Amino acid sequence: MDFLQVDAAEIVCKAHGKIKGQEIGVEIRKAIITAAGKSQRTLPLQTLVDRDGVTKTALRIIIEEIAAAGIEQICVVVCPGDQEAYRAAAGSHGARLHFVEQVQPRGYGHAVWSARSFAGDEPVLLLVGDHLYVSAQEKRCAAQLVAAATLEHCSVSAVQATHESKLPYYGAVGGRLAAGRKALYEVSEVLEKPTPTEAEQRLIVPGLRAGHYLCFFGMHVLTPAVMELLAAEVEAGGNRTVQLTSALARLAQRERYLALELEGRRYDIGVKYGLLSAQFALALAGRDRDEVLTSIIDLLARRELH
Amino acid sequence: MDFLQVDAAEIVCKAHGKIKGQEIGVEIRKAIITAAGKSQRTLPLQTLVDRDGVTKTALRIIIEEIAAAGIEQICVVVCPGDQEAYRAAAGSHGARLHFVEQVQPRGYGHAVWSARSFAGDEPVLLLVGDHLYVSAQEKRCAAQLVAAATLEHCSVSAVQATHESKLPYYGAVGGRLAAGRKALYEVSEVLEKPTPTEAEQRLIVPGLRAGHYLCFFGMHVLTPAVMELLAAEVEAGGNRTVQLTSALARLAQRERYLALELEGRRYDIGVKYGLLSAQFALALAGRDRDEVLTSIIDLLARRELH
Repeated sequence: MDFLQVDAAEIVCKAHGKIKGQEIGVEIRKAIITAAGKSQRTLPLQTLVDRDGVTKTALRIIIEEIAAAGIEQICVVVCPGDQEAYRAAAGSHGARLHFVEQVQPRGYGHAVWSARSFAGDEPVLLLVGDHLYVSAQEKRCAAQLVAAATLEHCSVSAVQATHESKLPYYGAVGGRLAAGRKALYEVSEVLEKPTPTEAEQRLIVPGLRAGHYLCFFGMHVLTPAVMELLAAEVEAGGNRTVQLTSALARLAQRERYLALELEGRRYDIGVKYGLLSAQFALALAGRDRDEVLTSIIDLLARRELH
Repeated sequence: MDFLQVDAAEIVCKAHGKIKGQEIGVEIRKAIITAAGKSQRTLPLQTLVDRDGVTKTALRIIIEEIAAAGIEQICVVVCPGDQEAYRAAAGSHGARLHFVEQVQPRGYGHAVWSARSFAGDEPVLLLVGDHLYVSAQEKRCAAQLVAAATLEHCSVSAVQATHESKLPYYGAVGGRLAAGRKALYEVSEVLEKPTPTEAEQRLIVPGLRAGHYLCFFGMHVLTPAVMELLAAEVEAGGNRTVQLTSALARLAQRERYLALELEGRRYDIGVKYGLLSAQFALALAGRDRDEVLTSIIDLLARRELH
């Protein structure tokens, strides 16, 4: 059923001489943060010291990542009842946040789809609420991604070359380097948490180190076509979980869809010691580097005395 | 006015042959956690990995510190409206917590006094909601303190020998070593955040390293006399801030009051990088020590590549 609907829509778009999803203008003006996962909902409320030496919630660090990409309209997808805590956690950014509640816990794709009215017919930057990013260059990670999507006029997912031992944690893409480009790939396949065998058969990317795959970074720029594909899955699915990954797999069949290796690293604050790693990485890349290193060494030395 | 009232009460107690505050039975059954400070209220909701390798909120780590001292009745003093978030953050301990709201922000002493009905006429273990403790021995810090107070039948504050440069952050006590005891002091003076000059004139403790003073550790066992002294200050004060320290100073004039240097360290999670230090200290003292050291070194090495 939903296959037929989407195919029909695609045919109509093509008949009009353009694919709706490719209508990315010069500017990406909207961003969505998903934070409605049951185990994830308190993570954006955690407190860290940012690279600038200021103590902030993770949510505020994510909002500033988005703002540094030139985007001011932000929608946060939350569990029912979490809106007030999130608005407080956003500090001075709180007043201008949009909120959407994900009423049923039907997966990541469903959470993204919940913000469809906010997105309207515009492309969106999509971030997860449980990842923080440390860029290895002056431009922050989201700004690197938004710049690429604006230039390429299509959906772009940030990816990171990741060892196969970590495949159980991520969605991954297969494809090949875009002609004449470094770190930019034409995506042909998308799989959610593939087995090593599936990955080897379908996701080998020429040029990557052996045993490495392009895994998602938790950051995408998505055209309106993705919302359409998600809508078809939500409507068809009854109470089934809706994955973003399967919508992206179909997007890759339908229109140009790229993956970009960013210069930077992601830190998942939802895993064990994830907050410690993220905080330490922020500190090492920030203005308090020496102070933090000294105190770490001090704690180590003190511990050895016992 | 309030001086007269308290003096009168003291005289009555003495006339009855005992000081009410010294009525500590064999068992300390109640604990109070204060968490109503404006800048402090989200700290107990922060997430860390405990020494046992389990991810918990700071509140749950504090509750387990109390439980390990054999105390099951716990009252948390919160800002109005914070009760639900705290109950959730306490996990399986949530159902049995008592809550008291501090309606006016009138200081730490006022927050403690807010739990007077919970305390009744029993001694209480008092902890702050923004400190975590790493014991240097098998017995946890709160258990060390409760054991001492039970043995001595009087109020005991945990203290830590602290360099004079840190006096602006703490309350501090003066006194002398209890006869024939190690690490246990008879308190004669209590000052809140003393200047170095005040400390030198009034808080020198024979036997401590030069330039060091006995500063509060954020953990006390208090007799009902302290609630009486606080009540007198609250009633006399109009809208004045009520400090615990000044009640303890008067307690020292009135009944036997001890300070104990615990074998362990406090970590204030409210200061900049406080969560990082606390998490690192818990990890170094816990079961995941090697794993965490490896990942810290890995992050350092990776950073040096950029």
